[in-house]
Amino acid sequence: MGNLSNGLENRARLLVKCPDKPGIVSVLSSFLHSHNANIIESSQFSTDPVNGTFFIRIEYHCDYLQEKAADMELEFKGIAKNYQMDYHFYYLNIRQRSAIFVSKETHCLLELLWEWQNGDLDTDIALVISNHETASPMVEALGIPFFYIPANKDIRKQVEEEQIRLMEKYKVDVLILARYMQILTPDFVNHFKNRIINIHHSFLPAFIGAGPYERAFARGVKLIGATSHYVTNDLDEGPIIEQDVERVDHRDNAAQLKKIGAKIERRVLVKAVKWHLENRIIVEGNKTIVFH
Amino acid sequence: MGNLSNGLENRARLLVKCPDKPGIVSVLSSFLHSHNANIIESSQFSTDPVNGTFFIRIEYHCDYLQEKAADMELEFKGIAKNYQMDYHFYYLNIRQRSAIFVSKETHCLLELLWEWQNGDLDTDIALVISNHETASPMVEALGIPFFYIPANKDIRKQVEEEQIRLMEKYKVDVLILARYMQILTPDFVNHFKNRIINIHHSFLPAFIGAGPYERAFARGVKLIGATSHYVTNDLDEGPIIEQDVERVDHRDNAAQLKKIGAKIERRVLVKAVKWHLENRIIVEGNKTIVFH
Amino acid sequence: MGNLSNGLENRARLLVKCPDKPGIVSVLSSFLHSHNANIIESSQFSTDPVNGTFFIRIEYHCDYLQEKAADMELEFKGIAKNYQMDYHFYYLNIRQRSAIFVSKETHCLLELLWEWQNGDLDTDIALVISNHETASPMVEALGIPFFYIPANKDIRKQVEEEQIRLMEKYKVDVLILARYMQILTPDFVNHFKNRIINIHHSFLPAFIGAGPYERAFARGVKLIGATSHYVTNDLDEGPIIEQDVERVDHRDNAAQLKKIGAKIERRVLVKAVKWHLENRIIVEGNKTIVFH
Amino acid sequence: MGNLSNGLENRARLLVKCPDKPGIVSVLSSFLHSHNANIIESSQFSTDPVNGTFFIRIEYHCDYLQEKAADMELEFKGIAKNYQMDYHFYYLNIRQRSAIFVSKETHCLLELLWEWQNGDLDTDIALVISNHETASPMVEALGIPFFYIPANKDIRKQVEEEQIRLMEKYKVDVLILARYMQILTPDFVNHFKNRIINIHHSFLPAFIGAGPYERAFARGVKLIGATSHYVTNDLDEGPIIEQDVERVDHRDNAAQLKKIGAKIERRVLVKAVKWHLENRIIVEGNKTIVFH
Repeated sequence: MGNLSNGLENRARLLVKCPDKPGIVSVLSSFLHSHNANIIESSQFSTDPVNGTFFIRIEYHCDYLQEKAADMELEFKGIAKNYQMDYHFYYLNIRQRSAIFVSKETHCLLELLWEWQNGDLDTDIALVISNHETASPMVEALGIPFFYIPANKDIRKQVEEEQIRLMEKYKVDVLILARYMQILTPDFVNHFKNRIINIHHSFLPAFIGAGPYERAFARGVKLIGATSHYVTNDLDEGPIIEQDVERVDHRDNAAQLKKIGAKIERRVLVKAVKWHLENRIIVEGNKTIVFH
Repeated sequence: MGNLSNGLENRARLLVKCPDKPGIVSVLSSFLHSHNANIIESSQFSTDPVNGTFFIRIEYHCDYLQEKAADMELEFKGIAKNYQMDYHFYYLNIRQRSAIFVSKETHCLLELLWEWQNGDLDTDIALVISNHETASPMVEALGIPFFYIPANKDIRKQVEEEQIRLMEKYKVDVLILARYMQILTPDFVNHFKNRIINIHHSFLPAFIGAGPYERAFARGVKLIGATSHYVTNDLDEGPIIEQDVERVDHRDNAAQLKKIGAKIERRVLVKAVKWHLENRIIVEGNKTIVFH
Repeated sequence: MGNLSNGLENRARLLVKCPDKPGIVSVLSSFLHSHNANIIESSQFSTDPVNGTFFIRIEYHCDYLQEKAADMELEFKGIAKNYQMDYHFYYLNIRQRSAIFVSKETHCLLELLWEWQNGDLDTDIALVISNHETASPMVEALGIPFFYIPANKDIRKQVEEEQIRLMEKYKVDVLILARYMQILTPDFVNHFKNRIINIHHSFLPAFIGAGPYERAFARGVKLIGATSHYVTNDLDEGPIIEQDVERVDHRDNAAQLKKIGAKIERRVLVKAVKWHLENRIIVEGNKTIVFH
Repeated sequence: MGNLSNGLENRARLLVKCPDKPGIVSVLSSFLHSHNANIIESSQFSTDPVNGTFFIRIEYHCDYLQEKAADMELEFKGIAKNYQMDYHFYYLNIRQRSAIFVSKETHCLLELLWEWQNGDLDTDIALVISNHETASPMVEALGIPFFYIPANKDIRKQVEEEQIRLMEKYKVDVLILARYMQILTPDFVNHFKNRIINIHHSFLPAFIGAGPYERAFARGVKLIGATSHYVTNDLDEGPIIEQDVERVDHRDNAAQLKKIGAKIERRVLVKAVKWHLENRIIVEGNKTIVFH
């Protein structure tokens, strides 16, 4: 992760998951207040107030946070133990580093680059890897390292080893599959659990698998969609982050559905990535909690 | 069908399906013009200008239509033969008669009755049949015959015989399944081919079958939907007429999804029924062409 | 307000508005925790962490709440004073009582009654007042008192006196204007500050005033909308609660826009009323904060 | 306009506007059929079948169209005279040439360039003119001539003369204002009547004029929108082509509304431009008929 000095050095986010019981908000807010931290934004959710699971995302401001963070985290360990908390502190001056994988179709990549150039995607794009050379000029024009790694199912193992090597070298936190059309092995996926974001070109769970637009056309649906989800080892079955749809009609053939779908994919993937970077998403089982 | 005298006696619609080739629009419009009919609205679609199938829906006005209709239809037979046309004339002074089947949940029925009372559903509601008594008061308050016919899978045959008998007695043209939760036999379905409209409580083809809201909740989708379709003998596989969705999030449990879904079902079913009554829908294979 | 005993007697909501500064969440959650209250849901917003205004809505569960409420409120006074809080405790076993005003068009009224019958509108509908008799049967069929009070601009004063007398007699908390087409005087509006919810038949601030659908038609807009807002003395300028739109096209004349608009009005008004009843809305200046 | 030889040389569109009366479709389709033209797509609209105005857009295929077009147009003159038709033939092998004007914000320009690179915008982008240098690299990278013409209200006349000179030199058919923030004089506008497409950053007629996002924020609206329209001499009052909206809430400040709005602007402008290029739009008074 890279260090910035843009006024965010006193901002952080605390995400917590624990068994629900009375007093959690109180103990968290008292903890923060005792360190003179001011809560800027807070969202919570409980699956059930009785014996359920509690989730909270707190964004706070704290003067001299850089100096105080280590002590705060140390003190928090005790609280976390008492309440059986899974938790994570995120510091806003440390930007997440992302890798983007792409194949021949570049519309999702372009949308990501665009948002990033606008300053609306809070990440360092560390590198782009593709099994095609199509995206090379637009990536390199922005000074982002581009790696062309041809791939097919026979050389999957070597390809993934090279990909992992590069991602470690570039210290990647999150991997975005911007229409990368190769299957990932369980080993690879486990390496980046809940950190690989994919865009599927259908309104899941409809049209799982290949050729969703062709199948949507064959079925005669009146809306088509796209789904962004974390990648798990069950193809197209990972936790859904965001979905959206557009209206189509009998005049739209499969090629036109694909064009319409590309627009949905662009905006759905960008939203999912943005929420991930803002630490708005908690994965719970096969679902996501997204704190908007 | 009932006869009205409300200024619609000079209006008709002609729907045609035939192999596409040059000159079809010309021959149809010349035919109408030669009878002094004025085209009010016309929509067409071709699957492919070369060797495709051509579809057209024409609404026209013609003075003295009642007197001229028989001659026009007779003359049209020749044209239809030349061009291998499937076709149908619909006269707007003859309202289609509909039956509504409903079970315990009445939200779709209520929406239909509401639109009908507003004059926005161009049909005579001939009767309502239910396997529950819930809907009886609201139906009878409007002077519509209501028949309570308990149903379950063991007596399906007798139930359907009684239903068919009633529908024939009441001269029903179209059957609307407004959340009728009994399976229909192939015999029954064949009796009313392309004339049974169902509302399915999911965004087909996702969540085919029972419990769609529970399964949508389990899958963690971010949008839920409803689908109106013609009933065929493949459960939930019939030609889709209309679909719509609403956004949901992690806070919505299965019961809340059901409530949100009910609102989608209401509006989707009403649209599909309206388009059917306005002869806007042509079924082609397992799809629909809907001329908006 | 009516008393119920349906398991809600241990639930309450606390809404607070105060100058933003560190420690507010901490003090509120510690206060609740010290009374063994468990926070079920919490949403907050700050116009600006530095010198801004802070808003929070907390829903909590507390055993023996009925017995403890008075003491809790008393103790809370001290906190509120320290932090300059505007605040209100709402107890969920006390349902708000509502009045509905309606004129000739009943679609919004019907939607409200429907939601209410479904148990989705947490209010006692105390009475319905109309300057037309149209709605009388549907209201009285549900056992709700209906008052026909003819109105026009010459007798406005007497009419409003009678309306206020009835609303006081029936202990009304919130007034819903479900397409009530009479102007209210400043005196009347002041009587129910931030407690009158109106549905305006346009996408405000477009088409303020009369005849919005006619004017939308004349302008050739491609979307029409509806807006629900609190009533103030500036016509159609009150704080907006909710808005929605539907697509229209050149084929829709003013009458059709009106029909499409009626559907938008129905759903927008119901949402606004529901949020008001759930204490989700805070009015701040001429805007609303809506905690979804 | 440029000549292509990509299989479109036998395709054309005929747009007609005339007083409605019986027989128009018949005469048009017979005319086309007599020349062995096959109608591919046809859409029509009448403001009123009695004494109204009739509009039709026909796309047709005709072998040897290049050789026959002149004769067909000549023959058509007689028909047009009989029926008092305004009409235009568009040949699909002749692409319209467009100019894009842009100021500092390039999001709409980028979206246009993107669609154009994808082959989804059927136009030759002849040149881009800007009063800022920001857009220069992205335009020139695509080989499109870019002209930097500083502008302000004192030199408006000279600036417009230079713009018109360039547009004539480059034979421009349609001018797209992709967030060009200078006012155009009536002379300039009249020069390109119904051929200048603008994107306004609000849901017209709300927030006419400057600072729409700031004003939307101040008013507390719950949806913001964008409007694409033809430019007339009444600021923001020209015929609306397309509009769309997005949901916002109390947490969105004016800067965020602007970001959300930018996404709406992009897609709304592209749709309007596409429809214009496909000859789908007929301007009638201050409204548009858009044949989708």
